[in-house]
Amino acid sequence: MKYTTKHDRVWNFSAGPANLPLSVLEKVQSDLLNYGGSGMSVMEMSHRCKSFDAILENAESRLRKILNISDDYAVLFLQGGASMQFAMAPMNLYREGHPMEAIHTGYWTQKAIQEMKTIGEVKVVASADAEQGFRKLPEVNESMFNPDASFVHICSNNTIAGTQWQSFPKVGKAPLVADMSSDILSRRLNIEEFGLIYAGAQKNIGPAGMAIVIIRKDLAEQANKSLPTYFQYASHIEGGSRFHTPPTFAIYVAGLVFDWIDELGGLEAMEKLNQEKANLLYGALEESSLFYSTVEKTDRSLMNVVFRAEGNNEALEAKLISEATAAGLTDLKGHRSVGGLRASIYNAMPIEGVQALVEFLREFEKKNH
Amino acid sequence: MKYTTKHDRVWNFSAGPANLPLSVLEKVQSDLLNYGGSGMSVMEMSHRCKSFDAILENAESRLRKILNISDDYAVLFLQGGASMQFAMAPMNLYREGHPMEAIHTGYWTQKAIQEMKTIGEVKVVASADAEQGFRKLPEVNESMFNPDASFVHICSNNTIAGTQWQSFPKVGKAPLVADMSSDILSRRLNIEEFGLIYAGAQKNIGPAGMAIVIIRKDLAEQANKSLPTYFQYASHIEGGSRFHTPPTFAIYVAGLVFDWIDELGGLEAMEKLNQEKANLLYGALEESSLFYSTVEKTDRSLMNVVFRAEGNNEALEAKLISEATAAGLTDLKGHRSVGGLRASIYNAMPIEGVQALVEFLREFEKKNH
Repeated sequence: MKYTTKHDRVWNFSAGPANLPLSVLEKVQSDLLNYGGSGMSVMEMSHRCKSFDAILENAESRLRKILNISDDYAVLFLQGGASMQFAMAPMNLYREGHPMEAIHTGYWTQKAIQEMKTIGEVKVVASADAEQGFRKLPEVNESMFNPDASFVHICSNNTIAGTQWQSFPKVGKAPLVADMSSDILSRRLNIEEFGLIYAGAQKNIGPAGMAIVIIRKDLAEQANKSLPTYFQYASHIEGGSRFHTPPTFAIYVAGLVFDWIDELGGLEAMEKLNQEKANLLYGALEESSLFYSTVEKTDRSLMNVVFRAEGNNEALEAKLISEATAAGLTDLKGHRSVGGLRASIYNAMPIEGVQALVEFLREFEKKNH
Repeated sequence: MKYTTKHDRVWNFSAGPANLPLSVLEKVQSDLLNYGGSGMSVMEMSHRCKSFDAILENAESRLRKILNISDDYAVLFLQGGASMQFAMAPMNLYREGHPMEAIHTGYWTQKAIQEMKTIGEVKVVASADAEQGFRKLPEVNESMFNPDASFVHICSNNTIAGTQWQSFPKVGKAPLVADMSSDILSRRLNIEEFGLIYAGAQKNIGPAGMAIVIIRKDLAEQANKSLPTYFQYASHIEGGSRFHTPPTFAIYVAGLVFDWIDELGGLEAMEKLNQEKANLLYGALEESSLFYSTVEKTDRSLMNVVFRAEGNNEALEAKLISEATAAGLTDLKGHRSVGGLRASIYNAMPIEGVQALVEFLREFEKKNH
């Protein structure tokens, strides 16, 4: 049995770079040699020509519409992914004498905290239990945070541990900074809760090589003006994401993804679909006597379903990965730092893909019980 | 008369992002939904899967072959273009008490020098004449440079002024750092003359959103280890360009461009072709009584042919741009900072495109004399 689909494509459960909506890829393909009668590929286009003006304008305005972003916030399309933001955010927002704060929830907050420490003082206010594989988010309340902190860092969804904040911590007066690389655009969001949101593109946005940055303009303006101009958010705000040559092709694909979300009904529709997909898969794991979700029920991610074979049987996990791959269900291996199994079911994964995976898991269980 | 070609494509003389080889774009298009039987687009592929391993390995080894890069140098595919390198290079290479040096040859060295100044002390050793529009490169000799300088910055080809170093300045013991964004891979090159070369991708390499960095490993190792890890070349060397998610699609397209160069006969063949193209266009300008090259003969760029109408007649220039665009010869406007005319004829511009431009210029001259 093979689950491949149109154009012999597989169901790709990669944690990122991850699958894109097929209709978006088909548009990209059809316009690849000559975009909209311009006589050239988007890849070949000056970032200051009229065709690209329209592409950039559409990407920004469509994103603002979907996320309901007010004019108090700037929207930037930058290079360097979230990893560069780990450094750029503290470079811009750290104020001497005002320690940065963080909630530590796994591998990616660890990376962010490490970069924050190269810039200034950091206090980890709360931490998930590393010994327990970060399988549960820590409980926090506003009184734990210093209102004078430069900012508070969180990661909204933890791809490796498979946890996700269902509602965001109240941190008081300090700006909340969120790395939303793996769940931005997957559910409704109140931008006003945040000072800064950033997200690498390669999960819910578009091709790798870009980060979306949504920043309260007053915060960007406060930054140290002696920083290299490239690393100041203010430079990119002033340049309208064209302070220098932007990642034009990635912006174009992202714009098509935003169009796709908007046409499907925006974030409300997206959230509903993501909930259905996750319920289906977590439900199947609950019923299974061979596999189990490793994550505390209240904190389970709608994006990354992390699971293991009973008894953490690595041989059985390897067998599953190998047979699934052969059946056209790929990239089910857990992150190299933790092993196990993981199915990433971002926005672009249709429910049919999750159904195929559930069916495969049931068949596998019958044969391997 | 219209000069459009296969697939109704124009001849695109953009200074960057710029045209790509048609055969490369055709490959990208044909593999867009399913790359090499992987069942997914390159854009959807984990940066740690086997298919991408092969893409990255090919891009690096093909580039090493074309440029004859020894193991003393690391080759990195980074995000952020040359503009990020303007800051990243001094962050890594500046040593307290060892001023950086630069040769100032126009708009882009000005940008680089500005960023260098945010990091440490800078001495401009020689400068082209700004009053004269940087139309001639300054004369320099080894005795002008401090052997104890942290490094010496140059720009190998100046897209706006239209000048290009025909041979590189001898600067003595200090490492030579070259921004080669607009002429890398256009001619033979002795990598050993340089400590660090970087180049934004969007002229001779691939889509915007990437920089290629070629750095002597010992220089990368000397850098300050308290920098944010993202900004240390050493991090990216250690991670083999996968310190974090790299710009996977841009690397893939770049690899196809490197294959194309190699199959055409490498840099020797490329240089010959570029010389033919430039000779044709400069020759036509010499013969013209309506247009002239603004650049000193000995310093003329093979990549960016900057020219003006006699008497710097702006109305005539605007007429040319408008009629050329209508005829399918696009992006002939000079940089917004200087005006005038510019035809960028990078590697991917076939000689047929230059022939079409020359023919158009002659017809235009007949009608407007």
